[in-house]
Amino acid sequence: MFDEMVKEEAEWLSGEGKNSDIVLSSRVRLARNITGIPFPAVADTDTRQKILSYVKIAIDKGGAFKKGIFYNSSELSRTDKDFLLERHLVSPEFAKEQNGFKGIFIGEDEKISIMINEEDHLRLQAIRSGLEIKATWEEVNRIDDELSEFLEFDFDSDFGYLTSCPTNVGTGIRASILIHLPGLVLTRELDKVISRITKMGLTVRGFYGEGTDVLGNLFQVSNQTTLGKSEEDIIESLEKITQQIIEYEGNSRATLFRDAKEHIEDKIWRAYGILKYACVLTSDEVMNLLSALRLGIGMGTLSGIDLKLINQLLILTQPAHLQKYYGYQMNADQRDKKRAELLRERLEKS
Amino acid sequence: MFDEMVKEEAEWLSGEGKNSDIVLSSRVRLARNITGIPFPAVADTDTRQKILSYVKIAIDKGGAFKKGIFYNSSELSRTDKDFLLERHLVSPEFAKEQNGFKGIFIGEDEKISIMINEEDHLRLQAIRSGLEIKATWEEVNRIDDELSEFLEFDFDSDFGYLTSCPTNVGTGIRASILIHLPGLVLTRELDKVISRITKMGLTVRGFYGEGTDVLGNLFQVSNQTTLGKSEEDIIESLEKITQQIIEYEGNSRATLFRDAKEHIEDKIWRAYGILKYACVLTSDEVMNLLSALRLGIGMGTLSGIDLKLINQLLILTQPAHLQKYYGYQMNADQRDKKRAELLRERLEKS
Repeated sequence: MFDEMVKEEAEWLSGEGKNSDIVLSSRVRLARNITGIPFPAVADTDTRQKILSYVKIAIDKGGAFKKGIFYNSSELSRTDKDFLLERHLVSPEFAKEQNGFKGIFIGEDEKISIMINEEDHLRLQAIRSGLEIKATWEEVNRIDDELSEFLEFDFDSDFGYLTSCPTNVGTGIRASILIHLPGLVLTRELDKVISRITKMGLTVRGFYGEGTDVLGNLFQVSNQTTLGKSEEDIIESLEKITQQIIEYEGNSRATLFRDAKEHIEDKIWRAYGILKYACVLTSDEVMNLLSALRLGIGMGTLSGIDLKLINQLLILTQPAHLQKYYGYQMNADQRDKKRAELLRERLEKS
Repeated sequence: MFDEMVKEEAEWLSGEGKNSDIVLSSRVRLARNITGIPFPAVADTDTRQKILSYVKIAIDKGGAFKKGIFYNSSELSRTDKDFLLERHLVSPEFAKEQNGFKGIFIGEDEKISIMINEEDHLRLQAIRSGLEIKATWEEVNRIDDELSEFLEFDFDSDFGYLTSCPTNVGTGIRASILIHLPGLVLTRELDKVISRITKMGLTVRGFYGEGTDVLGNLFQVSNQTTLGKSEEDIIESLEKITQQIIEYEGNSRATLFRDAKEHIEDKIWRAYGILKYACVLTSDEVMNLLSALRLGIGMGTLSGIDLKLINQLLILTQPAHLQKYYGYQMNADQRDKKRAELLRERLEKS
């Protein structure tokens, strides 16, 4: 499964959109539950299967989903699920699930997707390259409207949308951006910025979301509260604060290039040299080396490599992607070799 | 000074001769003192000047030295002396000296050289690429014979040649090889081998001889005793033991390539990548990276780079050589940048 998809490019990796040298992607996710049906965690098998069918029918009827593909989690191997996680189409919880009766719908170019029977009946997602949080919100909102024609979502006039986890009650919205902050990390300014962001009601997470590690200086910044604020306010606030973070990051980079230009350029070029010639590379090391290349592109140190390639390599070198790409199962040692081979090939071409 | 010499190649860096993938060079040094004149350390200025003139006259008369150059230490700057030290033409003591009245004679291709007024009145040296210890010995012996026609050396029928330092009394010979042992270092077998070598009357030192650090897995192995043994025995014994060390090193490399091939190749290629792309490189780091390249050439991992280039870079990237090569004084930071520039250029060509 996914043999073709691994060779195609998700739109959010295209390196396009506003501020894409610093913001990889914008993502908006909506939690929705169907009226009168228990949340997935407490629903029995029959009910979960029923939810799946309801959503599939709604999707089939909706015009926005003409070109998508639907997968039932029972058809997906462990590697398949990890593949979807690496592609930011499902959550770590979805990837870990063992019981089946979950589903994932993936729209054209992977711009929209719907997880079914994860924490909530539906989790609608829109994702785009660059700082395009408003467009992303409009996209997911359109999907929400369309599905609402065929599904009745649990909505309380006081609380708003009801969700499985109380932190999502209200708008049920989680808007997040995946942002690259090597400058703030290298100047040790990041903690200060994170504490400022947190005070403004946002939260900062690792590469794969809640509870995951920070890799390659990539951070997910998202709204914390969904209750008592309009979707528009949440989106606008995230956009504004992201603009500020971009400014902080820019200042840090300027400081670095003023005070330690040679050492930063050295770091960037060494990363390039290692990626181009190493024979064994772990996924974590690659994330850090690609982070240096991305910084190098942003600062004009590296030319002839585009952001798109870096974004693609970031995902393509992840364990499940690597196995899908080469078409066979590999253990960690085998992957570390194949990963190095892939990087050599791709950087040679560029 | 030495603007031309820095661009020329000393014969011992040519990568030629026996076992030159493991043995960089063979060197034989003879300590000689002129009868009836105090040792340099206790000689007054006039006496030291007299010694200088005597030796110069003898050199001028000797046929072997037709193409050499003579330098008085008073003409040499600190960088000049470091340059000669890096080229293995003078000792650390010579390079450190402040008082003048020392001299250095350098023969064609730097194969022979004579330090004057170092610890002894004369220190004759012959040096060659590869494991050519016998040829080197014959060379220095010929010089000794030739000089003996014009200078009367202190010789005691019981003790042999009298020298300033008692450890040199007897033959006054120090024969040494500069050997590259990354295999024994990586397999942690080196200590065992050193202890074996030491028991056989040899001593192991760092890159610049006594009391200097080991850099780039390069070791100097030389005879310890000079008393009670003939020159021929000393030479033969060093040659034999070196053959054994080469065998140990070969076994270690075979073990490494059997048990950890990918990781060794990874180490070699990463070193290549860093040398080719880094913007800032210290001398010590370069020695270690070049050591990996040298191993790579020996094991057939790297092709298209020859030993000669590695040997040249080993010396050319040393601090004084770098300043001579570019023709101006540099501080450590400036050197680290120029060193990286030089390596990029040279490896690009290869």
